[in-house]
Amino acid sequence: MSEGGEEVSNKQILLRDYVTGFPKESDMVLKTGTIQLKVPKGSKSIVVKNLYLSCDPRMRIKMTKLDVSSNYFDFFTPGSPIVGFGVAKVLDSGHPDFKEGDLVWGTTGWEEYSLIEAPETLFKITHTDVPLSYYTGLLCMPGLTAYAEFYEVCTPKKGEYVFVSAASGAVGQLVGQFSKLMGCYVVGSAGSKQKVDLLKNKLGFDDAFNYKEEHDLNAALKRYFPEGIDIYFDNVGGSMLDAVLLNMRVQGRIALCGLISQYNNLDKPEGIHNLFCVVTKRIRMEGFVVFDYYPIYPRFLELALQYIKEGKIVYLEDRIEGLENAPSALIRLLTGQNVGKQVVVVAHE
Amino acid sequence: MSEGGEEVSNKQILLRDYVTGFPKESDMVLKTGTIQLKVPKGSKSIVVKNLYLSCDPRMRIKMTKLDVSSNYFDFFTPGSPIVGFGVAKVLDSGHPDFKEGDLVWGTTGWEEYSLIEAPETLFKITHTDVPLSYYTGLLCMPGLTAYAEFYEVCTPKKGEYVFVSAASGAVGQLVGQFSKLMGCYVVGSAGSKQKVDLLKNKLGFDDAFNYKEEHDLNAALKRYFPEGIDIYFDNVGGSMLDAVLLNMRVQGRIALCGLISQYNNLDKPEGIHNLFCVVTKRIRMEGFVVFDYYPIYPRFLELALQYIKEGKIVYLEDRIEGLENAPSALIRLLTGQNVGKQVVVVAHE
Repeated sequence: MSEGGEEVSNKQILLRDYVTGFPKESDMVLKTGTIQLKVPKGSKSIVVKNLYLSCDPRMRIKMTKLDVSSNYFDFFTPGSPIVGFGVAKVLDSGHPDFKEGDLVWGTTGWEEYSLIEAPETLFKITHTDVPLSYYTGLLCMPGLTAYAEFYEVCTPKKGEYVFVSAASGAVGQLVGQFSKLMGCYVVGSAGSKQKVDLLKNKLGFDDAFNYKEEHDLNAALKRYFPEGIDIYFDNVGGSMLDAVLLNMRVQGRIALCGLISQYNNLDKPEGIHNLFCVVTKRIRMEGFVVFDYYPIYPRFLELALQYIKEGKIVYLEDRIEGLENAPSALIRLLTGQNVGKQVVVVAHE
Repeated sequence: MSEGGEEVSNKQILLRDYVTGFPKESDMVLKTGTIQLKVPKGSKSIVVKNLYLSCDPRMRIKMTKLDVSSNYFDFFTPGSPIVGFGVAKVLDSGHPDFKEGDLVWGTTGWEEYSLIEAPETLFKITHTDVPLSYYTGLLCMPGLTAYAEFYEVCTPKKGEYVFVSAASGAVGQLVGQFSKLMGCYVVGSAGSKQKVDLLKNKLGFDDAFNYKEEHDLNAALKRYFPEGIDIYFDNVGGSMLDAVLLNMRVQGRIALCGLISQYNNLDKPEGIHNLFCVVTKRIRMEGFVVFDYYPIYPRFLELALQYIKEGKIVYLEDRIEGLENAPSALIRLLTGQNVGKQVVVVAHE
């Protein structure tokens, strides 16, 4: 033990090795190490106890090292803990902006305790009258994604036709609700009857369908959108995007948020064949990375908290208890078995 | 003869039948009919003598009847004359806005004389101190396309890196010159050494390459754009678009103007595999149809005429003499044998 720091055992979830194809639970491994609960003297780092961890589709991308140049990727390191968003409590701080007992959300490790060397990247949680786990979803990156991408990229107008894929997921469920608040007609697609029921009966979508039961996505979209689609909020890519292109209206907008259908074969992704519709229908298609919108987070947070208080939005979470079950939670998400935002509960404060 | 109207013979180029795959000259047929050179009494139509006809890539699309819903398509009718842009002289008019001797540009038939029933769609030519054939290209739809799409869709900034495909074509050559006037660095691709030389030595491109000599388009683009591409003005689609996606810079813009590489198999177009880059690099990709920009034509015309007078832009035409050679001219364009805007000279006034 150094300088009075308490050394404790620290369970961690490590990436075993870079993954090819579909990841499995066994690509991750539980290891028990140790950690000092005090920050090194003179350091500006903090030590946190992780409470909630977020499972996000883009974590799949970081499990495979790809040669794609962009500042989007920060691959996992085999033999090191998985890295992701989480909610944590500060146990010790060498940084002037943080003190013991503070609650934070941001990038942390998949472990019980983390030493965070650049705590400036974390957001301090000041509103605690909502479930803290919401800071892995609705009040964190997925919420800001839904908000900024829907309002800033999709530029919705009242009465427009909106389609959302992966609609019961962390981002999709919010886009649907924002669409209704905007006075749009919104249909969602999801991968099970249970999710479709939730979209229609709990999340306020005007309609919803199970894409796995549709052999002809083009025909399905024609059925749900006889007038065509003004806005497509794309969380999946692939054949759904191709079918949507055929059903877009003139001057429609497509927000490309994620392409989860392609994440297991990003080195050889499926082709999109109907881009010609982008020309003929003057479609605007725009990619999105939430980090660009961090400056508007405070404005978003205020609105989201108000919406929660007024009961204007609801938020579905799929919680799994225990760090040891985190690999299973991530695989659940990547195979679409989760219902709502997938969260791992590491500790209840 | 009716009401004193002079009936004359009228050579026409008809579409024989809808085309599958690559069109050939024999898909069009020369026929000699007759036409009255006076408009029917009480009609608001006009009769014109066609002077110059425009060959445009999108004419290929109209040669095959596709089931793609959009107001972009107005297919040719087998057994009827090909329809396209042209410059013509009014011989007789029942319309108050037109009189004998007026020069017009707009949609006309591939024939010596045309009866135009809705002359409101035509633009009257009032500046005749430039070659009249320019009203099939630089001062017509291709010019307005280059202007509006470059400035309105690509939102260029000084110093940005611009790539143009089909760069010596009617639209591409102008985009390159607008890029230079804007202070951008611009590289063009074309399909022959002659075109590449013209791009570099006559049209002012900073650099150019022959895509047919590049086995690896991705590698070629990396060579010409070591810093990446900010703006891609896409006239071709297909594998070039896929390679460009890998080389775009963050927050780049792609204007989809045409996809000539796909026009012979629009019912089964090539797949685009690298759309994931649109997400990771926050790319905006936008389709464009020039008709949406007709309201700004007067502003564009004024600027273009001024540029011509000041010698700030040059314009390359590839002229073919004689209506009977129009099918050959169109096939030249569709197989990339033309050098500059492909024009058919039907009559010299």
